[in-house]
Amino acid sequence: MSEATYQYDLAVIGGGAGGVAAAIKAGQLKGKVLLVESGDLGGLCMNRGCVPFAHFMIASRILGDLDLGRELGIKTERLTKDFKTLLQRQNDLLGFMRQGVAGMLKRNGVETVQGKGCIAGSGAVAVGEKTFTARAIIIAAGGRWAMETPGGALPGEVFSTSDLILASGDLPKRALLFGASPWSIEIAQFLRRFGSEASIATPEKSLLSSESKTIGTRLTKVLKREGIAIHTGAVISGVKKIKGGWSCEINDSKDKAALDFDALIHPDRIAALAGLGLETVGLDPLARFIEVNERMETSVKGVYAIGDAANPPKRHYSHLASSQGMIAARNAMGQNISFNQKAVPRVLFTRPQIACVGLTPRQAKDAGYEVATGSAALSMNPLGMILSQQEGAVEVVCDKKYGEVLGIHIIGESASEMAGVCAAAIQMEATVEELARIVFPHPTLSESIGDAARDCLAQIAPLR
Amino acid sequence: MSEATYQYDLAVIGGGAGGVAAAIKAGQLKGKVLLVESGDLGGLCMNRGCVPFAHFMIASRILGDLDLGRELGIKTERLTKDFKTLLQRQNDLLGFMRQGVAGMLKRNGVETVQGKGCIAGSGAVAVGEKTFTARAIIIAAGGRWAMETPGGALPGEVFSTSDLILASGDLPKRALLFGASPWSIEIAQFLRRFGSEASIATPEKSLLSSESKTIGTRLTKVLKREGIAIHTGAVISGVKKIKGGWSCEINDSKDKAALDFDALIHPDRIAALAGLGLETVGLDPLARFIEVNERMETSVKGVYAIGDAANPPKRHYSHLASSQGMIAARNAMGQNISFNQKAVPRVLFTRPQIACVGLTPRQAKDAGYEVATGSAALSMNPLGMILSQQEGAVEVVCDKKYGEVLGIHIIGESASEMAGVCAAAIQMEATVEELARIVFPHPTLSESIGDAARDCLAQIAPLR
Repeated sequence: MSEATYQYDLAVIGGGAGGVAAAIKAGQLKGKVLLVESGDLGGLCMNRGCVPFAHFMIASRILGDLDLGRELGIKTERLTKDFKTLLQRQNDLLGFMRQGVAGMLKRNGVETVQGKGCIAGSGAVAVGEKTFTARAIIIAAGGRWAMETPGGALPGEVFSTSDLILASGDLPKRALLFGASPWSIEIAQFLRRFGSEASIATPEKSLLSSESKTIGTRLTKVLKREGIAIHTGAVISGVKKIKGGWSCEINDSKDKAALDFDALIHPDRIAALAGLGLETVGLDPLARFIEVNERMETSVKGVYAIGDAANPPKRHYSHLASSQGMIAARNAMGQNISFNQKAVPRVLFTRPQIACVGLTPRQAKDAGYEVATGSAALSMNPLGMILSQQEGAVEVVCDKKYGEVLGIHIIGESASEMAGVCAAAIQMEATVEELARIVFPHPTLSESIGDAARDCLAQIAPLR
Repeated sequence: MSEATYQYDLAVIGGGAGGVAAAIKAGQLKGKVLLVESGDLGGLCMNRGCVPFAHFMIASRILGDLDLGRELGIKTERLTKDFKTLLQRQNDLLGFMRQGVAGMLKRNGVETVQGKGCIAGSGAVAVGEKTFTARAIIIAAGGRWAMETPGGALPGEVFSTSDLILASGDLPKRALLFGASPWSIEIAQFLRRFGSEASIATPEKSLLSSESKTIGTRLTKVLKREGIAIHTGAVISGVKKIKGGWSCEINDSKDKAALDFDALIHPDRIAALAGLGLETVGLDPLARFIEVNERMETSVKGVYAIGDAANPPKRHYSHLASSQGMIAARNAMGQNISFNQKAVPRVLFTRPQIACVGLTPRQAKDAGYEVATGSAALSMNPLGMILSQQEGAVEVVCDKKYGEVLGIHIIGESASEMAGVCAAAIQMEATVEELARIVFPHPTLSESIGDAARDCLAQIAPLR
């Protein structure tokens, strides 16, 4: 097909966080852009993921702050938690946000079409009966629930996804969160703080097992103190229907426990590659996710993939999707830029929050670096003392030889807002000396990033 | 005096935020260090400034969050605010922190002496009857209250400092905050939220007049909505004693108003240079502050000055003092490094918070740059919507020619924790393209820094 005969410069399959960012960016670059989405604009993230659950986590924070408030002389009585009010506010907000996304797409000249998009050979995207042609395609189809029976052999009707919480006006009284997704930890904490019993059962050997050990250990301590049962290395068996719910047996790395529950929530997700017509351009629809190069291009020229469709479950972050989306769009529009995979924050909106960027000490060693690790406890940080951040900490990992910052790991209030400086340091290949010299305002928790950097520096250059 | 005859490598005059950081750093560098402090270790910042007032501002945030909580279905009744409990917790914390500072100094081999330190000629510091010799001296004597009669001709007994709030077990019912210090804004908001009437009267032509216009305008709106009266370009006159307090007349840029108050709090400060023996080494004790070079060294070799003693009132920040302290200590111990004055955050712990680093659009133009300014409203940021950040905003200022980031200005919740990435960007001379590419986690307010950077970039490179 000759260049002139394409209807669009770019077709984006999927209107979630990644697809919308890609489409808008290409529109800003004066591209003629088609965006195909089968459900709600904004995708999982905005409609049933990050945003509504962030809203829950803010409610969770405010509940936690009531305890802190009491210490500070702010006393209240007769606390009530009305989940219906929270859900109503949420739905109003989401409606407003969806309108906002539609408006932004329109202002940037993006055409949207409702339906399931599917590649139909080189340069073509089919939506139902119609076929559109485009010089470049970005696959931003996102993920799907990993509803393969979890934990061995459970009947399908036992488990539900996080959608359960959004759909029902009432919260389950006794919830079992099952799976490897860190999302289950956020949900468990929210449910607990809103008055439910909550247990976490994960097949992983520890909570957040791929993160620095100090992070998972400290978070586990907080969750247990809040009354959340945690089973690691867990297998669920013997599920039986009982009056008002289910009972099961959990075998974990230490012990065997019986548990009754009303809801088993399994929020694990994987790339959704079925029905995308990948095979029509020679891509593998049975892959775990679509492989791309640093320009976000697949092995097929002009076909890009981003976000959940192009990443393993541990990298399903909407900020990764939108960042990759913008990079893919720029490349699709003729630029030639790379995405820096190293500088992507991995964040959990629990209280305390968690934000990690770059390599853990273990990963850095495995990658062949000679490693120095510095740390600072938020229990020694002035604002940390005020905020009772007993379990808070910052860990900085650097390469001894050149001093390059390889990783920064934070557990503490506002960690998600501190992630920017961590991402910046790693993206810009800062040395630990440069990190140590940043003037963080006082009193903030972020000062501890500087303290941890200086602790790290002292190991590689004791007289600096 | 020959090298060998000095008792110390370094004598530090003043044990506040700057002096303590300097002494510890020199101790870590194996220096023999003397620290002289006449009052409490930790200085104004820890004992009567940043830390206790940050504690108040956390109480202030929690009170604000109760309103947000109600929207989220978290309802409470019978709110009471017990200032005595808050003050007691504070005093306990401060006692613990003072012990912490003393311990850190000891662990790093710093000797401390109690008393007013005074330079006694080259290489000598007198404390009372005793004289100590040191190869280098750091003046970290801090500031003092600017108790020169404010606002024209007020009797001295009318006004007090922020110490009033720390000393009394009760808060004034009607407080008038007078002066140019942004501190008065924090105090006013805290008092208002704890139930007092609060008015601000500043001689400045607007609140935060030296910051980007958008910052002061938005903060003013929030404060007025909370019921805080604001008088700019204000002069106070006709102060009269009345039953239970005072009355006065405030002439501001628009109008004339009568006001009754119980307490006039005037928290302005200036460098404290009297009695330091500056004249014994040829420095001017009548200067507004001590002039230093980028190594923090005064015009006298081996004599350094940092923090409030070496900066105009608008730069009295303890994080500036401690950062300069560490730089001065390293130079005093034989290194040769510069302090980057451009990358110092200017922060206000009001709600919303304010964090500004680098140049305002106006300052950038005045400095001869061709300027592009990008912005992003937190009312359009997903977490900003959740947190009702109607007045929140981020502004990025860059140079059109090379794209260098010149300034970042934030008003919004957690701005102080976001200041790190702003300081990093300016310290490392990031371009606006580099800032735009940082992957900020979603959903956070910090994402708006990326949005503002992209808005700025679009003006200088529309096709990037």
